[in-house]
Amino acid sequence: MDEIRIIGVRGIPEIGEGDDLATLIVEASGEGAIHSDDIIVVAHKAVSKAEGRVVPGSDRRGAALAESARILRRQGEMVISETRHGFVCANAGVDASNVEGDNVVLLPLDPDLSARRLRARLQHISGVDVGIIISDTFGRAWRIGQTNVAIGVAGLLPFVDYRGTTDAQGRDLSATLICIADEIAGAAEMVMGKTTGVCAAIVRGAPARAGRGAATEIVRPPRGDLFR
Amino acid sequence: MDEIRIIGVRGIPEIGEGDDLATLIVEASGEGAIHSDDIIVVAHKAVSKAEGRVVPGSDRRGAALAESARILRRQGEMVISETRHGFVCANAGVDASNVEGDNVVLLPLDPDLSARRLRARLQHISGVDVGIIISDTFGRAWRIGQTNVAIGVAGLLPFVDYRGTTDAQGRDLSATLICIADEIAGAAEMVMGKTTGVCAAIVRGAPARAGRGAATEIVRPPRGDLFR
Repeated sequence: MDEIRIIGVRGIPEIGEGDDLATLIVEASGEGAIHSDDIIVVAHKAVSKAEGRVVPGSDRRGAALAESARILRRQGEMVISETRHGFVCANAGVDASNVEGDNVVLLPLDPDLSARRLRARLQHISGVDVGIIISDTFGRAWRIGQTNVAIGVAGLLPFVDYRGTTDAQGRDLSATLICIADEIAGAAEMVMGKTTGVCAAIVRGAPARAGRGAATEIVRPPRGDLFR
Repeated sequence: MDEIRIIGVRGIPEIGEGDDLATLIVEASGEGAIHSDDIIVVAHKAVSKAEGRVVPGSDRRGAALAESARILRRQGEMVISETRHGFVCANAGVDASNVEGDNVVLLPLDPDLSARRLRARLQHISGVDVGIIISDTFGRAWRIGQTNVAIGVAGLLPFVDYRGTTDAQGRDLSATLICIADEIAGAAEMVMGKTTGVCAAIVRGAPARAGRGAATEIVRPPRGDLFR
């Protein structure tokens, strides 16, 4: 826990439908570069492209509306909506950057399932037992700018739960539930960038607990959400 | 940009009013451990304590209301409010954990100024030219759990601005403005924890640009905020 390393995986080629992303990540990382207990963060765009979640983008707005379960706000050409997974983000995650031609990329249908498959495949081909986070770039209420967050999780718990523990003075840390999956996704963004073609990162030493976690756990149920 | 290291600084003693936080960080880090161009992330609680921003906590709710410029929502004992700095968070950042006795800790009066002073003092005592981020743990709309974010910034730009640049396919990345200060603060949380007494972290290799940035730049003006 004293040191965390975040390593960008360079050299993964442009992804197309049906590509074996796990093999591409392992090959680009190099022999032995991925260790058990590492967390591999993958940009959702790579996952979506491998899964064929690409549609003609002449009507990006139409695609965003089709991908939305509910519109929260509209502002000019942008909508802020809730996706079918429950994520709240701009244009339902439909993205036109880093896509070939006139296409747009949709979010994976089930990013947690995508993460579990990627994890199983990595274990199969290289024998490592890693955590997987699939990330996307989301805006936030109240704060300018975007950060990367987790939209798919496998092999780790998305939260570090301090509820019921006490601090150094013996006081209850009752309100503290850290979303470490989002912190890891955000940290990995820094080596992935937007223009460099680095779609995966290795995170080593993060204090996430291994386990059967899912990004859907991070979705705040609309009924308990004071800002929806 | 290919590798980022996040190093927890162990051994900083409990902070009291008037303590020289820069010296404590340098001494705990060890000779030569902090390099120029590193970013030092400091938990706001250490800064607040050094600045004497501690009040008797018998009435935490009263303190939270006194620190609020505007109440956005109430839920049981908690308020979500806008602080005088413009930050939106629970209980105006008033915190009872990791404080001695019955006291509560308030946010620094001017966290950007605190960051600039800490930066100048670090430069003075050890000759390093670093960026400073003062962090706090905030909840979010729409997503469960908290992450650490930047409430004070000095010596770096809080955003990486891709607006006007193009992606690998030559398409405009017009909407992308990454709040790297928040990503760095969140990454540093992972080595700081809540129960370990580590109140500072060294972040090395993050692609933040040096410059005269401030955390107030991250505050979304209420008028442009669709969720306030």
